[in-house]
Amino acid sequence: MKYIGIDIGGMSVKCGVVDADGRLYFKKAAPIQATAEDSAILKDIAVLVDDVLKESGTDKADVCGIGIGCPGSVYDETGTVRYSCNINFRNTPIVKMMCELTGVDNVRVSNDANCAALGETLFGAGNGAKNSVLVTLGTGVGTGIVVDGRLLTGNRSAGAEGGHIGINLGGATCGCGKRGHYEAYASATALMKQVEAACAKYPESGLAKYANENGIDGKTVFICAKNGDKTAIATLKRYIKYVGTGLVTFANLFFPEVIIIGGGISNAGDDIVKPLQRYVSRNIYGAQYNPKIKVVAATLKNDAGIIGAAALCMKND
Amino acid sequence: MKYIGIDIGGMSVKCGVVDADGRLYFKKAAPIQATAEDSAILKDIAVLVDDVLKESGTDKADVCGIGIGCPGSVYDETGTVRYSCNINFRNTPIVKMMCELTGVDNVRVSNDANCAALGETLFGAGNGAKNSVLVTLGTGVGTGIVVDGRLLTGNRSAGAEGGHIGINLGGATCGCGKRGHYEAYASATALMKQVEAACAKYPESGLAKYANENGIDGKTVFICAKNGDKTAIATLKRYIKYVGTGLVTFANLFFPEVIIIGGGISNAGDDIVKPLQRYVSRNIYGAQYNPKIKVVAATLKNDAGIIGAAALCMKND
Repeated sequence: MKYIGIDIGGMSVKCGVVDADGRLYFKKAAPIQATAEDSAILKDIAVLVDDVLKESGTDKADVCGIGIGCPGSVYDETGTVRYSCNINFRNTPIVKMMCELTGVDNVRVSNDANCAALGETLFGAGNGAKNSVLVTLGTGVGTGIVVDGRLLTGNRSAGAEGGHIGINLGGATCGCGKRGHYEAYASATALMKQVEAACAKYPESGLAKYANENGIDGKTVFICAKNGDKTAIATLKRYIKYVGTGLVTFANLFFPEVIIIGGGISNAGDDIVKPLQRYVSRNIYGAQYNPKIKVVAATLKNDAGIIGAAALCMKND
Repeated sequence: MKYIGIDIGGMSVKCGVVDADGRLYFKKAAPIQATAEDSAILKDIAVLVDDVLKESGTDKADVCGIGIGCPGSVYDETGTVRYSCNINFRNTPIVKMMCELTGVDNVRVSNDANCAALGETLFGAGNGAKNSVLVTLGTGVGTGIVVDGRLLTGNRSAGAEGGHIGINLGGATCGCGKRGHYEAYASATALMKQVEAACAKYPESGLAKYANENGIDGKTVFICAKNGDKTAIATLKRYIKYVGTGLVTFANLFFPEVIIIGGGISNAGDDIVKPLQRYVSRNIYGAQYNPKIKVVAATLKNDAGIIGAAALCMKND
C-alpha cells in the first residue's frame, strides 16, 4: 500500500511516495505559480504527482490515497481551501479538483501545520503516540494537535490555533492585534525582540557585544548562554518560562503523551528541549501522580508535511 | 432503550433512569458513607440502583448500560477511580465492581465534570453540538470538553483541567500552588476576592456599603452593578475580561460550536452570558471569517451529571 503526500508551500510544492509505515522513499519538489488561477496551480501539482509516480516506479493502482497539506484556512470536512495568504486559493474545492485531475478517489486535505503534527506524531518524534501536541516555534507559533490518533481541528477546522491563547493579561501585542498571546512571547521573532531589549538594557554584556558583531537571530541567545554570559542566561531562562507556560496549558488540557517542539528554535536541540522538559514536569497539574509528558524535538523536519499529508488518508483504511 | 445514570457526590449519590433522547424520567438520591470501604460504598449504590429500577417500573432487561460520574481522578479506559478527595476510593476498579454487583455488563465511568459536560452538550444547552466546552465557575473552575461528540480526557484521563491554564504570567496564586492560573481569576471564589479588594479600595462605593450590610457572595457584584454602582460595574467588567480570556483560549484551541457556562456564577444568566458572548465574539482568532461560537448558560443544572453519566454508555450503541 502506497500513499502520495503533497506539501504545498508559498514557493514550491513537495510531493512524495509514503508507505503504510510512514517511510518516505521518493520525493520531488516543483515551483508553484502562487498567483495563477487555482485550476492552473492544481494542474501543475497533478503533473508533479504523475512525475513522482513514474520516477519512483509506483503503479497508480497501488496508490491508496493522496493527502494534501496546504497553508491557510482549510476546511477538512468539505475538502476546501477557504483562503491562503500566499497562494491564490479562494474557496477552492481542492479535494474534488484533485480527484478529477488524478483519477484517485481518496483525496484528503488539511492545514499544513496539522499535517506536520500528524506526521511527527505517528512516524516521527511522537513514535506512534495517540495524543500529542506539535508546537512550532518559528516566525509565529503554530500548533497541531492529535487526540486519540486523529487531528483535532474544531468546528469547520477553525481550531488548533495555539499561538493565540492568552498567557499574559494585557501583555505584549501579537501579530493578530490582540494582547498577551503566546505567539508574542514564544515565537523566534519574539525571542529576537527579547534579546534586542536585553542588549539595549545591558550594553556591556557579552550578549550585546556578540549581537553587535554578528547581528541577532534565533541562535544568538543560545550561543551566548553556552559561553556563560549572565544576560544571555537570564534572557534564555525567561524565554523558557514563556514557552513553558504555553506548553503547560496544552498539557493540562490535552494531557498528551508527548509534546513535540518544531520550527527554527528546535534546532537548539537539548539546549531548548531539556529545560522545557523540566519546566513541564514541574508545572503540570497533578505532577506527583499523573503520567509524565515527554518533551522532544521534531525529527522529520522538512519531511513531516509530506508524510503527515499522506497519513491523512491512512486513518480511513 | 434505557440507561442508568449515577452521579456520585461527597454527601450523596443521585441515580436516575434516562432514555436514548437524554430524558430523565425518574431520579432518586441516597446518602453516601464517604469514609467506608469502597466495596461498602458501592454495595449501597447498587441497592440504590435496584430501588430506582423498582420504583420507576423499569425492567432490568431493558437497561442498556450504567454510567457513573465520580469526582476525583478517574481513569476512564480501565474503569478505575484512582482517588477521590472526599470519598474513600483508592485505585477502586469501580466498573468491574459495579458489573458484578448489578449484573449489568455495560458499565462506564468518567470524572463528574466530564459527565456534566457530555450531558449539557448532547441534551442540554449544547443542543446536540458535536464540539463544546463546559466551563464551571464555582468554588474552582472545572472544564469538560467534547470533541466530535466524544469526551476529551487525554492520556490516562489526566487532561481537561481547564482551571489550570496559565492566563497571567506570575499572577495570582491558584489553589494548586502555581501562579497565574485561570481558576485564580475566574472562579466564584476569585470573584468574591476581587469584590472584597474593590470594597477595601473604595469604601464609600455602593458596592462596599452593600457588602457591609449583606456580606459578599457570588451575586453581590451583579446586584450592585445592576443598581448602577460604578465600582461594581468596573469590578464586573474586569471579571468578564478574566473569564473571557480563558474562554478565548478554549475557543482558539477547540473551536467548539458552543461554550456552556455552568456553576454558581451561571445563575446570573444574561448578566454574565451576554458580556461573555460579546468578549468571545470580539476576541476569537479570525473573528471576521470564522464561524461564530455561541456562549450559553447551562440548562440541565443539577441533572447534567446523571444524564451525562448515562450518556457515557450511549456512544457505544
